[in-house]
Amino acid sequence: METLTVALGERSYPIYIGHNLFSDRGLIQKHIPGSSVMVVSNSTVAPLYLSALTETLNGYRHDRVILPDGEQYKTLDTVNSIYTSLLKNRHDRKTTLLALGGGVVGDITGFAAASYLRGVNFIQVPTTLLAQVDSSVGGKTGVNHPLGKNMIGAFYQPLCVVIDTETLNTLEDRQLSAGLAEVIKYGLIGDYEFFKWLEVHVEDILNRDPQALSHAIWRSCENKARIVAADEREQSGLRALLNLGHTFGHAIETGMGYGTWLHGEAVSVGMIMAAEMSHRLGWLKGKDVVRIGRILERARLPTYPPKQMSSDRFLELMSVDKKVVGGRLRLVLLRAIGESIVTSEFDTAILEATLRSYDVV
Amino acid sequence: METLTVALGERSYPIYIGHNLFSDRGLIQKHIPGSSVMVVSNSTVAPLYLSALTETLNGYRHDRVILPDGEQYKTLDTVNSIYTSLLKNRHDRKTTLLALGGGVVGDITGFAAASYLRGVNFIQVPTTLLAQVDSSVGGKTGVNHPLGKNMIGAFYQPLCVVIDTETLNTLEDRQLSAGLAEVIKYGLIGDYEFFKWLEVHVEDILNRDPQALSHAIWRSCENKARIVAADEREQSGLRALLNLGHTFGHAIETGMGYGTWLHGEAVSVGMIMAAEMSHRLGWLKGKDVVRIGRILERARLPTYPPKQMSSDRFLELMSVDKKVVGGRLRLVLLRAIGESIVTSEFDTAILEATLRSYDVV
Repeated sequence: METLTVALGERSYPIYIGHNLFSDRGLIQKHIPGSSVMVVSNSTVAPLYLSALTETLNGYRHDRVILPDGEQYKTLDTVNSIYTSLLKNRHDRKTTLLALGGGVVGDITGFAAASYLRGVNFIQVPTTLLAQVDSSVGGKTGVNHPLGKNMIGAFYQPLCVVIDTETLNTLEDRQLSAGLAEVIKYGLIGDYEFFKWLEVHVEDILNRDPQALSHAIWRSCENKARIVAADEREQSGLRALLNLGHTFGHAIETGMGYGTWLHGEAVSVGMIMAAEMSHRLGWLKGKDVVRIGRILERARLPTYPPKQMSSDRFLELMSVDKKVVGGRLRLVLLRAIGESIVTSEFDTAILEATLRSYDVV
Repeated sequence: METLTVALGERSYPIYIGHNLFSDRGLIQKHIPGSSVMVVSNSTVAPLYLSALTETLNGYRHDRVILPDGEQYKTLDTVNSIYTSLLKNRHDRKTTLLALGGGVVGDITGFAAASYLRGVNFIQVPTTLLAQVDSSVGGKTGVNHPLGKNMIGAFYQPLCVVIDTETLNTLEDRQLSAGLAEVIKYGLIGDYEFFKWLEVHVEDILNRDPQALSHAIWRSCENKARIVAADEREQSGLRALLNLGHTFGHAIETGMGYGTWLHGEAVSVGMIMAAEMSHRLGWLKGKDVVRIGRILERARLPTYPPKQMSSDRFLELMSVDKKVVGGRLRLVLLRAIGESIVTSEFDTAILEATLRSYDVV
């Protein structure tokens, strides 16, 4: 087992990465402050791992909420169903919410923990690659609004993150690829060595080679923990680098209806669009755009936006993005593979030209 | 104009108390960081003060949400309507939510500010006595759930609180009395001098004598600011003293349906019930119970629970209160007028006997 720390002063917490961590009873128990736990999972993950996990909760009063599976359920209504279950089962301020599932389960459960009785304890047990390398680390919690993705939420840190790599053996291929998009992102935004390692090992990861998976998760979490520790609330601009491809990607997710495209798939397209735009700005070499496209394709990820998304629709949806500040859209763009910047200093015509190049004539 | 400070380190903020503050354009403007403002008010307050307030917002882009008036609208659905309006009008992370109204408007708006885009700026402009002396100060925000009052929310501090005492001239008598319940509370929990002053001046306040009102508000805010600064998140037990009468009171509000009883009315009954119970425990003199009952009656507040509330119903509703920790109910009780404690160290039979003494035979 490897342990990383997200260094946030008195809110610091460990990330545990290893095989068969669910069978280590003491590991989770030492992070539960009270005597009651509410496990939140979904209808796909619960049949696979809920009983193994609840065995480690022997001695605690524990209840469960099983959500339907899918991004389309990442709503305020679903959060409300968790409040109802907590209240019906009389969970008090000392209770702990434990999220067992992918990014959607973690984001919903985290926001429920942040807002139930003005804040209760929270533990992340991510079971998808995407959640393990990205959404479970860093304290961003929340739900979607019909008018925009992740528009409602809170910064709320967990007490610990428990990553059992065994859970990836039951993950479907499409989900594994979607998680890989975020892994590749860390290489692109600031870790060229890792990008080169991924160019060698992308098929090993798809084949679920345990060593390759563990290294990819550990290196991704290490990158994310460092960035979050330096800029927890996205104030200096550093944390915003993690949004590479996300402004384009959120437009796709919102435009297509939540759940049609997986988040990682939309981010994959968004990253290649950001790379294209960086190239048009004269910042990124053409051969690097090709190299980025190639690794995404090898990871079995899409590299073109859906036909239904016109450039006008992109522009409309991107203008309500959270990254709009004072009316100016800010984007993460690339200077090189492993070197990214957050900026609103670009010619809007270049953004439009990039988007129009994808329009179906 | 008087200025008090809620001392919370980098989250410290001023409370301004005075007449005609709405006509002081610079006062609010200097606390607005961005260029856009969303004013949230209700259908009772907006016709009276919204135009005066928006005049001070000259030069800012400002939109408005007008909520229906009443505690029954303090729901997640109402918060969602604020998110929708913010998104439709493209308010970004630099926007400021300004709550113009009573405690319900302030609590709802504060939670919307805490959770929109994971947190935006927030200013309180309370227009009822209750909101001015209690709910606008201290950062407790949130909404009700059908199973319990204030069960959903966040600790989220405003940038400033602007109390224009002029607004009390249009407040209906019943609301003024309800606010007085919280004013009297400060005397009971820790300020015997203030209690004695109130015994002299309660009719002056009801007659809306400007000097009496200003002093009551200032002294109440001073008490609250000191307590909040020492225990922002209700961890040491000090802040919990502010809940005198509230556990009994919340049971009445929930049991009768939100909006039937005003919060201050329920707290008035709750305080006399807590005083009765303290007397039964041998902690408070009988003559002090009488003295408390007398000032509440002079303030035109109820001192008996509604007939519909049986002792069994009280016990049922009190057991889901946020103040339940580890299965033990904690109550604020009185050792004397001006001396209170938070404790779960009491004989439950005494609580039951107190409640049964109100049962209609």
